[in-house]
Amino acid sequence: MTTINQVSFIGAGNLATQLSKALFRAGVSINQVYSRTMESAHDLAKPLNAQAITDLQQVNEQADLYIFAVKDDALLQVLANFPYRNKPMVHTAGSVSMQVLADFSSSHGVFYPLQTFSKNKAVDFRSIPICIESSSDAFTTSLTQLALKLSGDVRYVNSTQRQALHLAAVFVCNFVNYMYAVGYDLMQQHDLDFDLLKPLIQETAQKVMKHNPREVQTGPAVRSDEKVMNKQLDFLKNNEQLQELYKFVSKQIKETSKGGF
Amino acid sequence: MTTINQVSFIGAGNLATQLSKALFRAGVSINQVYSRTMESAHDLAKPLNAQAITDLQQVNEQADLYIFAVKDDALLQVLANFPYRNKPMVHTAGSVSMQVLADFSSSHGVFYPLQTFSKNKAVDFRSIPICIESSSDAFTTSLTQLALKLSGDVRYVNSTQRQALHLAAVFVCNFVNYMYAVGYDLMQQHDLDFDLLKPLIQETAQKVMKHNPREVQTGPAVRSDEKVMNKQLDFLKNNEQLQELYKFVSKQIKETSKGGF
Repeated sequence: MTTINQVSFIGAGNLATQLSKALFRAGVSINQVYSRTMESAHDLAKPLNAQAITDLQQVNEQADLYIFAVKDDALLQVLANFPYRNKPMVHTAGSVSMQVLADFSSSHGVFYPLQTFSKNKAVDFRSIPICIESSSDAFTTSLTQLALKLSGDVRYVNSTQRQALHLAAVFVCNFVNYMYAVGYDLMQQHDLDFDLLKPLIQETAQKVMKHNPREVQTGPAVRSDEKVMNKQLDFLKNNEQLQELYKFVSKQIKETSKGGF
Repeated sequence: MTTINQVSFIGAGNLATQLSKALFRAGVSINQVYSRTMESAHDLAKPLNAQAITDLQQVNEQADLYIFAVKDDALLQVLANFPYRNKPMVHTAGSVSMQVLADFSSSHGVFYPLQTFSKNKAVDFRSIPICIESSSDAFTTSLTQLALKLSGDVRYVNSTQRQALHLAAVFVCNFVNYMYAVGYDLMQQHDLDFDLLKPLIQETAQKVMKHNPREVQTGPAVRSDEKVMNKQLDFLKNNEQLQELYKFVSKQIKETSKGGF
């Protein structure tokens, strides 16, 4: 097992930003930050005391681990232009199989922190699950050791499971946030303060910390309250898109409320 | 202005249960609890030291306020069978106009606590917004005084606004909970612990406490990452319903991410 003391980042997006900063705070050296534009490479490299580079040929050999945190579309191309073979490397993508790295290194794996990241909002990594997958037991140990510097919740998750996890995350985070956005707009349109909804948003999230969401489903759809549903659809009569969304989700709640899918 | 010291509940569902218990804890006497079945009337009346009744003709005249907390479908029928006229009365329904009470009492109004209620989960009313509407200034004052015994956030909201609010609540609570349920099922199907998603669920809710949801939208749809979206749709190939939901919400996120609706 090799201890990972020094890492380099390929990518400077939301995840790369928060992960590199968390590693830096945990005492790990950040050697280089690669991005396609000097501005974003530099913005991230500077607070990390790292070198900013925009050419993959400038990647040096000093890092104990190369973390590829780029968009899924870009990953294969970046790998193809990476100048070394058999360097310890991980990607951070939920929906990409570990296997895509196999041609480039015998020590390859996945380091997937399950959280939503923005460039400008720091997150506390201690409670974020970090999902590890790796090509060997020794490399698993190295990655686990690194992950434990950040989080108390490190798990081994294989590629198929990680895909399910990523998809579940899209539903409980991205789609949920979209529902918040719809609520926000409705409030604005009727001169209502979004603050009114905040205790409800928090309680709804809080409830599923302790309960199976299906068992605490409330609202007109689950109690088949057609009167309320028709009124609400009528209220949305000038917004065909929202009407469709309302019908669609209500129908699924009604149909699936008695069991699973 | 009349101070409301004693109330009776028509209805013993989730909202009636939590609201009556909160009023009781705040020192308000609960006189009677009406429900169609003696079991549910009794279950609620007992801890409140109230009388359980199943016949509206047994409603006595002693209460300072009659709170109608029944399903929207049942409200008109219950009102028609209510034995008194001109008693101070409110309903608690998000999507029902105050006007439906006008024929039954000159002191009528709405007392709408904006939260999701379950029978068995106590909620802390202090941070729950209570939305008041009323037929007169004096009655508004009485209702506001009562509401302030429970919550620090009491607001005057008219019937149209309340309908918008209720609809927004369906999106940010009921539909959000359904997204949690989808996530739950996906995790179960792949032997993954739902706990893995909990920090993400909390962070997603927490983010919109301080940010406009549209500005913190993340995920494959908002960044038009077709590669990930196609993979996720493929992953759902045996579940047509979820595939449809995925396509539908992703499309709306893409279309509306640049502005409002």
